[in-house]
Amino acid sequence: MKNNQKPSAMPIHKYVPYSQQINVNLPDRTWPSKEITQAPRWCAVDLRDGNQALIDPMSPERKRIMFDLLVEMGYKEIEVGFPSASQTDFDFVRSLIEENAIPDDVTIQVLTQAREHLIARTYESLKGAKQAIVHLYNSTSVLQREVVFRADKAAITKLAVDGAKLCKKYEETIPETDVYYEYSPESYTGTELEYAVEVVNAVLEVFVPTPERKVIINLPSTVEMATPNVYADSIEWMGRHINNRENVLISLHPHNDRGTAIAAAELGYLAGADRIEGCLFGNGERTGNVDLVALGINMFTQGIDPQIDFSDIDRVKRTAEHCNQLPVPERSPWAGDLVFTAFSGSHQDAIKKGFEAMAVDAAAQGKSVDDIVWAVPYLPVDPKDLGRSYEAVIRVNSQSGKGGVAYLLKADHSLDLPRKLQIEFSGVVQSVTDAEGGELTSENIWNIFQDEYLPAADAAAKWGRFELRDTHTSSRDGATELTATLRDGDAVTDLTATGNGPIAAFVNVLAGQGIDVEVYDYVEHALSAGGDAAAASYLELRVGDQRLWGIGIDSNSSTASLKAIVSGVNRALRSHVDAEPELVNA
Amino acid sequence: MKNNQKPSAMPIHKYVPYSQQINVNLPDRTWPSKEITQAPRWCAVDLRDGNQALIDPMSPERKRIMFDLLVEMGYKEIEVGFPSASQTDFDFVRSLIEENAIPDDVTIQVLTQAREHLIARTYESLKGAKQAIVHLYNSTSVLQREVVFRADKAAITKLAVDGAKLCKKYEETIPETDVYYEYSPESYTGTELEYAVEVVNAVLEVFVPTPERKVIINLPSTVEMATPNVYADSIEWMGRHINNRENVLISLHPHNDRGTAIAAAELGYLAGADRIEGCLFGNGERTGNVDLVALGINMFTQGIDPQIDFSDIDRVKRTAEHCNQLPVPERSPWAGDLVFTAFSGSHQDAIKKGFEAMAVDAAAQGKSVDDIVWAVPYLPVDPKDLGRSYEAVIRVNSQSGKGGVAYLLKADHSLDLPRKLQIEFSGVVQSVTDAEGGELTSENIWNIFQDEYLPAADAAAKWGRFELRDTHTSSRDGATELTATLRDGDAVTDLTATGNGPIAAFVNVLAGQGIDVEVYDYVEHALSAGGDAAAASYLELRVGDQRLWGIGIDSNSSTASLKAIVSGVNRALRSHVDAEPELVNA
Repeated sequence: MKNNQKPSAMPIHKYVPYSQQINVNLPDRTWPSKEITQAPRWCAVDLRDGNQALIDPMSPERKRIMFDLLVEMGYKEIEVGFPSASQTDFDFVRSLIEENAIPDDVTIQVLTQAREHLIARTYESLKGAKQAIVHLYNSTSVLQREVVFRADKAAITKLAVDGAKLCKKYEETIPETDVYYEYSPESYTGTELEYAVEVVNAVLEVFVPTPERKVIINLPSTVEMATPNVYADSIEWMGRHINNRENVLISLHPHNDRGTAIAAAELGYLAGADRIEGCLFGNGERTGNVDLVALGINMFTQGIDPQIDFSDIDRVKRTAEHCNQLPVPERSPWAGDLVFTAFSGSHQDAIKKGFEAMAVDAAAQGKSVDDIVWAVPYLPVDPKDLGRSYEAVIRVNSQSGKGGVAYLLKADHSLDLPRKLQIEFSGVVQSVTDAEGGELTSENIWNIFQDEYLPAADAAAKWGRFELRDTHTSSRDGATELTATLRDGDAVTDLTATGNGPIAAFVNVLAGQGIDVEVYDYVEHALSAGGDAAAASYLELRVGDQRLWGIGIDSNSSTASLKAIVSGVNRALRSHVDAEPELVNA
Repeated sequence: MKNNQKPSAMPIHKYVPYSQQINVNLPDRTWPSKEITQAPRWCAVDLRDGNQALIDPMSPERKRIMFDLLVEMGYKEIEVGFPSASQTDFDFVRSLIEENAIPDDVTIQVLTQAREHLIARTYESLKGAKQAIVHLYNSTSVLQREVVFRADKAAITKLAVDGAKLCKKYEETIPETDVYYEYSPESYTGTELEYAVEVVNAVLEVFVPTPERKVIINLPSTVEMATPNVYADSIEWMGRHINNRENVLISLHPHNDRGTAIAAAELGYLAGADRIEGCLFGNGERTGNVDLVALGINMFTQGIDPQIDFSDIDRVKRTAEHCNQLPVPERSPWAGDLVFTAFSGSHQDAIKKGFEAMAVDAAAQGKSVDDIVWAVPYLPVDPKDLGRSYEAVIRVNSQSGKGGVAYLLKADHSLDLPRKLQIEFSGVVQSVTDAEGGELTSENIWNIFQDEYLPAADAAAKWGRFELRDTHTSSRDGATELTATLRDGDAVTDLTATGNGPIAAFVNVLAGQGIDVEVYDYVEHALSAGGDAAAASYLELRVGDQRLWGIGIDSNSSTASLKAIVSGVNRALRSHVDAEPELVNA
C-alpha cells in the first residue's frame, strides 16, 4: 500500500524548525509521568488580552458585565486592563474601585510596560484598591530584541530591572493598597531559556519574593511556536532555574496559534506551573488565549473541582457573546451548540442504552442517577451538570438524525428563520413529536411549519380569524394610508388607517377591530434572486399579552410583512382558544 | 499572596479520573524527546465522520465538491462514506466510481460495521474501483461492552475476527479492485490497552499484513478522555505490542472533546504513529475531529512540507463552509478571519518593524523578501503563503485599532450589513484611508458610509441623478401598480409601472427611464422595536454591467427597498462618471 503523497509547492524554505531557533533540552523531564489532581490558581484576562483582540472592544457597560460574571463564576484574580495605555481602561479601573465593585477576596491585576510615565499612571489608577497585582512586562525574544528594540540582552535586562525598581518606587504612592507583582518576559517562547531565566532572576532581586508576598513569574506563549510538550519542557526547566522558587508562582499564559493552547496549559501545569491565565471560550489576540472554560471543565470531568462555577454554561456563553460581540463556535469544547449532539444512529443508540443502564444501576443501588458515576457513551460529561439539557439528543432522534429544523427549512424552502424564531418553532415541533412520536422528515416539518404559521394551502380551509386579501397604499410626506381588504371570520370588508408606514397603518387597522398588536422585531429577506420573486417576512409581535412570531410570504415584500402580522394574530387567537380548556380544568 | 479560590458546588462525585478507568503506564516513553520531521500519511474523513456530524448533511452535489477539493489539495486517502448504512452514501460511492472521479493515485475508504449484510453491501458499493480501503470497526470499550453489547471480551473479539473473515470472503466478489484493510477498535480510549492489542492482533491474523499490503490499525480517540500525553503514551505502548509492526500502519483518529485533539495527533505521531485521520477545520461529531488544516500548517511553519496545498486557504475555507453549512470560527488556527489581525498598538508596531527589517535584510542579501527566512513578530506565518493578504493589519491601523467597520455601523447605527456588503464597504473605506491617510473614528466611517450609500443630509445637495420623493401603490391579485414621484436630474415627474410587487414595479419604472436594473439579493431589517420606526433595506443589484449594493432607510419598509434601488443606481452612475477621466488618460 504505497504512500502516494507528493511534495507540495508550499515555500518551506522560509521557515526554520523551532528547535533550531530555541534550544529546549530536558531529557530527564518528569512531567509526562504526572497527573493533574487539583485546580491551579486561575487568572482571567478577558478584560485585557481578550478585550484588546476584539473587533469591537467592550464598552464600559460590557466590561462591567464581564467583570461581574468572572467574579460570580469564582475567579479571584482578574486582569482588568492596561490603564496607562488607554483612557477607557483607566476609567474602568477607577470605576471598579470607586463603585466598590471588587469583592474583598478578589484581586484586580493591571498590565504595564516598563516605562516611568506608564508606571506612574498605573499606580494612579489603583488608588483606593484594597489589593492589586501590578503586571510588568517587556519583550525579551531574539526577534523583538533585534527588530523592535535593536538592543542587546544587557539593555533589555536593564529595562526590566529599572521597570521593577520604578514599580517599587511608585508603590509608595498608594500605601493603603497591598501591591503584589507579576513579571512577564513577553514573547517568552521566542526567548533563549538561559536568557529568560537571567532576566527573571534579575527582576526577582528587585521584587524580593517572600512566603507572604510571593511574586508571579508569567511565562507566556505569546506566540505558540512548537508542540505543547516543548512548552512543558521549558516550564519544567525554568522551574529548576528560577531563584527563590518556593516563593515564586509560575504562571502560564498560552496563546493558541497552533491550536494547542489547552494542551500547552495542561502539560505546562504538569511541568510545575502554579497558575494559568486565559479567557472564557479562548478569546484573545489572533487565535486566542487559552480557553478557561475548556480547562476548568476538563478538570471537572476527571473528578477535580475546578473551583469555578460552570453550572450554567449557556448563561456564561450568552454573556461572553454579548461582551465580546463574537459568537462561541458550535464545536467549542463543552459549550458549543453541537458538542452534546449525536447525529449518528449508532451513537444515539449507545447513548440511549447508557441512560437506561444508569437508571437500572441507580435503582439497584437505591440511589438517584445523580449520585452514581456518570457513564454514558459519547457523552463525556452529563450535560445537566453544565445546565444544559438532553434536548439535543432527543431532538435529533425525533428527526431521524437528519438535521436541524431550521437547516431543513433553509435548505428545502429557502427560509432563514431568525434565531429567536428558530427556538419558538423547535418548541412547536417538539410538542408534535412528543404527542405523536416517531420520526420526522423534512416534509413533516414543513407541514408542521405551514400549519402553525402559514395559511392552509387549501383556500377553503380557514386557518384563522383573519385573512389579508388585498392592499392599497399611498405614501406622501412620511405618512402612509393603507386600505386593507380583510376577511374577519366570514365577513370581508375594506378597512383604512394611516401610519408612518404600511406596518404601522395595518397595526392601526387591527386596533380598529379590537386587536392590540405591537411590533418588537422585524426581519425580511428575498426567497430567491429577482425583484419580488418572493419575500419572507418575520415579525416578533405582542398580541394582547402574548409575545410570539408571525410569518408572511408574498411576492410583494410589503404585503409579506402585513401577512406576517395576520399570522401572528391568528396564532395568538388560536392559542388562546386552545388554552381555555386547560384553564377550566385547572 | 493568598489563594482565595474556593470549592465550587460542581458535582465532582460523579466523575472518576481517567487513570482510574484505564491503566496507561509507560515510564520509559521515548516520544517527548522526538521531533516531527516529515508529514504523516493523511486520511481526510470529511465525507464520513465530518458529514455525519452536520446539522444539514451534504447533498450529493456538496459531497462531490468536498471530494474534489480534498483531491485537489493533495489528500490521497479519503474516507467517502458508510455505504452500507445509508443509501445516499452508497449512491455517492457509486457515482464516484462510475463517473471516474477518483484519480489513479487516490484511494477511497469506506466504513463498515462487522456484520455480514453490511459487509456484503460495502463490497457491492466498491465494484469497479481501482483500489479501496475497507475500514472495519467495532466498539471495544469497557463501557460499550457492558452497556451496549452486554458481551464479554471473547465475544467482542469474535465479532471483530468474524468481520475480518467476512471481509476476506467478500473481497473475492470484486477481484478487479485492490482492497486494503483498516481496522478500528472503536472507543479505543475507553478500552484497556491489553485488550485493545489482543483484539487488534487477532484481526491482524486474518488480514495478514505484508510489506506490499500493509494493514492500517486505527486507534481512535473516539471520545477524548485525558490529557494528550496519555494518548501518546498509549500509542507508543501499542506500537511496542502490535504484532508484525513493520507491516502495520498505525493511524490516529483524535476527537476534540477536551479541546486537545491537535496536540493528541501531534504527540501521538511523535509516539510512533504513521497516519492521521481528520477533517478540514476540525469538523466532526460533537467538538469535532482533529483539524487537518491546523496540523498541516503547523508542520509548514516548521519548514516541513505538509504534502498538502494550503496556498489558497480562503478558498478552502469557503468551500468547506459551503459543503458543511457551518462557519469556520473567527479564531480557527491559520484560517479564521481574525488570526492574522493585530489589534494592539504595540503588536502593530512590532509587525511594522518586522516587515521593515525583512525588507532591509533581503536588500542587503540581494534577495527577494520571499527568499529569506520569515521573521515578523506576532505573525508566525506569512499570510501570503496561505493566499491571505496583509489587509487585516493595515485595515486595523487605518482604524486606530478601534474595531471593524461593520461592527461600528451595527453598534452605533443599528445597521446590520450583509456580509457581501461588508466586504464592498471595506473597499470603499480602504480607498478613503489610502487617499487621505490618518485614523478613522466611528463618525468618519459613518460619514463615508452616508456619502457612499445614502442621500446627503443636506437636501439641497443632490447626491445623484435620482431621488425618490413619493410613492403610491395598489395591489390586487398578485399585481402591484406603483406610481413613483421621481426626481431625475432637476426634473420631477410621476411615473407609473406594474410588477408582481413594488420592487418589480419600480424596476420597470426605471427601465422606462433607460436604466437597466436587476435585483440579485435583498435583505431588510427593523432599526429598532416598533411598527415602522425605521427599516434598513439592502439590495444587491446589477445596474447596466455593474454589480453593486444599494441601501435605503425609511420609516416605510417598502419605501426603504425602493430607496435602496435608487442608492445602487446613483452609485453605479457616479462610478461610471468617475471612471471616465482615467479612461481618457489611459
